[in-house]
Amino acid sequence: MDPDRVLIFDTTLRDGEQSPGISLNTAEKLEIAHQLARLGVDVIEAGFPIASPGDFQAVQAIAREVHGPVIAGLARAHAADVDRAWEAVRDAERPRIHTFLSTSDIHIEHQLQSTREDVKGQARAAVAHAKALCEDVEFSPMDATRADVEFTAEVLRIAIDEGATTINVPDTVGYTMPDEYVAFLRSLYDLVPGLADVVLSVHCHDDLGLAVANSYAGIQAGARQVECAINGIGERAGNASLEEIVMLLHTRGEAVSLTTDVVTRELARTSRLVSRLTGYVVQPNKAIVGRNAFAHESGIHQDGVLKERSTYEIMDATTVGLDANSLVLGKHSGRHALREALQELGFAVDGQALNTAFKRFKEIADKKKQVSAMDLEALVTDELRDELRAYTLSWFDVEASSRRPPHATVELVTPDGETVRGDFTGDGPVDAIFRAINAATRREARLREFRIDSVTGGQDALGEASVVLEVAGQSAGGQGVSTDIIEAAALAYVRALSNAERRVAAAAASAEEATTADPQLTPTP
Amino acid sequence: MDPDRVLIFDTTLRDGEQSPGISLNTAEKLEIAHQLARLGVDVIEAGFPIASPGDFQAVQAIAREVHGPVIAGLARAHAADVDRAWEAVRDAERPRIHTFLSTSDIHIEHQLQSTREDVKGQARAAVAHAKALCEDVEFSPMDATRADVEFTAEVLRIAIDEGATTINVPDTVGYTMPDEYVAFLRSLYDLVPGLADVVLSVHCHDDLGLAVANSYAGIQAGARQVECAINGIGERAGNASLEEIVMLLHTRGEAVSLTTDVVTRELARTSRLVSRLTGYVVQPNKAIVGRNAFAHESGIHQDGVLKERSTYEIMDATTVGLDANSLVLGKHSGRHALREALQELGFAVDGQALNTAFKRFKEIADKKKQVSAMDLEALVTDELRDELRAYTLSWFDVEASSRRPPHATVELVTPDGETVRGDFTGDGPVDAIFRAINAATRREARLREFRIDSVTGGQDALGEASVVLEVAGQSAGGQGVSTDIIEAAALAYVRALSNAERRVAAAAASAEEATTADPQLTPTP
Repeated sequence: MDPDRVLIFDTTLRDGEQSPGISLNTAEKLEIAHQLARLGVDVIEAGFPIASPGDFQAVQAIAREVHGPVIAGLARAHAADVDRAWEAVRDAERPRIHTFLSTSDIHIEHQLQSTREDVKGQARAAVAHAKALCEDVEFSPMDATRADVEFTAEVLRIAIDEGATTINVPDTVGYTMPDEYVAFLRSLYDLVPGLADVVLSVHCHDDLGLAVANSYAGIQAGARQVECAINGIGERAGNASLEEIVMLLHTRGEAVSLTTDVVTRELARTSRLVSRLTGYVVQPNKAIVGRNAFAHESGIHQDGVLKERSTYEIMDATTVGLDANSLVLGKHSGRHALREALQELGFAVDGQALNTAFKRFKEIADKKKQVSAMDLEALVTDELRDELRAYTLSWFDVEASSRRPPHATVELVTPDGETVRGDFTGDGPVDAIFRAINAATRREARLREFRIDSVTGGQDALGEASVVLEVAGQSAGGQGVSTDIIEAAALAYVRALSNAERRVAAAAASAEEATTADPQLTPTP
Repeated sequence: MDPDRVLIFDTTLRDGEQSPGISLNTAEKLEIAHQLARLGVDVIEAGFPIASPGDFQAVQAIAREVHGPVIAGLARAHAADVDRAWEAVRDAERPRIHTFLSTSDIHIEHQLQSTREDVKGQARAAVAHAKALCEDVEFSPMDATRADVEFTAEVLRIAIDEGATTINVPDTVGYTMPDEYVAFLRSLYDLVPGLADVVLSVHCHDDLGLAVANSYAGIQAGARQVECAINGIGERAGNASLEEIVMLLHTRGEAVSLTTDVVTRELARTSRLVSRLTGYVVQPNKAIVGRNAFAHESGIHQDGVLKERSTYEIMDATTVGLDANSLVLGKHSGRHALREALQELGFAVDGQALNTAFKRFKEIADKKKQVSAMDLEALVTDELRDELRAYTLSWFDVEASSRRPPHATVELVTPDGETVRGDFTGDGPVDAIFRAINAATRREARLREFRIDSVTGGQDALGEASVVLEVAGQSAGGQGVSTDIIEAAALAYVRALSNAERRVAAAAASAEEATTADPQLTPTP
């Protein structure tokens, strides 16, 4: 491999998807994985196959359908985990098993309730087992940055002896600082001669705001794989943000003489897709992909004053694909124009799917003068969610007034095809419609989060609602898109309810199976 | 000064407030400044007094009313700017004038259209003039990290000779990397012997995700003042995030042996206040203050599995004040209980203000079973906005249905006391009420952004709407809080409209005055 090439390992679908309130179904994960392939990442960590049947199914579908990147599945250092991961990824063009085990005493003692000797044995067995199944094996000593470097080195020597081809050194709790991380990695290079023959990888969390800086420090120390996630999502404060790492290497290319294979023009769209499907908003001041990250997006006035772009911009917004919004359709655009526009956006839509998309497009075009690329993205992404939808919203009526309590009536079709109706007088119109849905479905759903954003600007913007619900201890999210925010909210609520019910059913099913330990409850790197 | 003490210079009200769509009035800026004082920051950069009469007024009010921190005003290196800044801050207990001038050739040539010689002369004159007025003078060579280090050093020697007491080295465009920044600062120490006798300051932007890491690198190189903003807001991708810098030094205190005087328990509340008043959302995975930044906030399941907190948490959520939500009032709570609760939250409310707050509290308590500290914060903050409100919403009626177009009727009172009414049939209920407001006020307002968030969880949560409008080329934001999102949206729209109209009037007024150059259009460090 080119020594100046940095591999981008995307963990949006694994570490990112473990964030609270995110519940992607297989169709959504596939859509993200296809976009990651289009973005040009080197490795997609598609999930944690033993965690649930849904996780397994999604990883397998990605392994079978997504071409280009290596497809990795995560596994604890147990034979059953490794087997399950292999089963999920084996059909990929280039499968990888990623197995992990803590080397910090604090984890060994309190979480694993084990000993260092035992950890060495488990690591050896897991890597050997993985290697017997798959040529490409990655090993991570979890919580390494808080571990004894000598002991971590010992475990890494074992993993490399057993055939690990990538060694990832995670800063699991986001504790390290750049200088410390460099020192730690350099010590590992000194103590583990075999490290020079495998790919060193970094995996940093952002608890102290240093994930990107630590990842970059790791690269300077010799790492050639960076684990990161779109929009920096992930456990707690999240992982290093993929777009920041990539644009740092891209913008400061001449200073660092390192490159990636990422197609930077796809960054903005990937960010929007992930934000939309996860319901995780990107703050306006987020680097690279935030609404205000580029002065020219908003600082219209400044454009006139400044004579030279480079006086205040170090990157061009077109580089990250922020100009993609120029494509515009109107109410007179035909099926052919829609199909071409969708293709340009990377959606291959044909046959019945095109008919559905066209019908939906016409409804929106009747209400909006111009339908932009971002509107189309939102609509098509919205359609993807329908595959598994359990309840369907038939119609609703809402009266809201400052002079009397708001009232809502809804009609729904249940997953069994039954038509049900409910009504409620609430504190607000959204409250009323949510409770009317509860009344119609006879479900005790508890609203945990609710948000509405506009997809594009202007008075006739599409509204995008996100709802997180809790039903019987399971929480799940749902999104809905419409020019009517009450409708968007109701769609989001109905989808969240459907997702939560599937989770409740899955939890009940897996409680019946015997498992070694619930992987849902297991911390990961 | 203690050599291990790092001064925290907060620029939320200056660089942060320059973010697009943020328009804080004087009451809101004062509220933030009081909270920053409670947080224990060392310096508050309160604004850019020459930029507008509103900026001047806010800086002056903060200088007069906020005790504790140094109050700084920004000024370009012109006598008129320095005079105006001094006029605004002179009544502070400890005033500071912060003057700046670019030292990079790209800025000198394209933006200043000047020469190096001229820059030296201007810097000398501005610092000398500031020093004649004020003992505490800060000088910033703008875009220093892209400037010739020898020339920058020459300018800094002049500034120090003329009496500058703090030298701030800004990475204006967010371009530098930690090692480069350290090397640059070390060169300055070598080339400018006097730098050892003044406070070196760092001011980093987050365009490549490195603002915190660069600031920290600067501290390691000898800087003892960090310029930062709450939630990392600011131009483009924003400034270094105050809460991240502070918690980095706090959490890794033993490794870095550096301290700040910040009261970390006030961080979460300060973040919420700034987010609410600016309308800038904090993403869930934002370090320190994001909803998911602490595992225990969401990872309820994990708590049961993990035997030892430190296995996965490097900080305790109580340290940043995330437990403050325990205080709860109900519908039977009296005026006294409300007053005590508000006091505990740091709001000194009495007399008529207490009556208003109590009335508002009772309205909400009638609809919500429990009113939490976060609800109270939102309500009181919402009340603050009313002081300058131009239009008032009297009542509204909205009908929304999936079976016919939504219709809205509103009645408003104009700033002149006239009662006006409007109605509209729109694409959605919010669209209908927004256009009904336009019809009633006969204003052509263009909606640029719209968002609704819930303040707390649960079905009966308060909704918080944010609107950004554009009227006659001026954009302005407004927020509204209610259990009814249509009402919250309408309140936000009416306030945004009022703010925009004030901006239009101010722009028309300042267009009539003769000015050297419009400071609104001038880039700042």
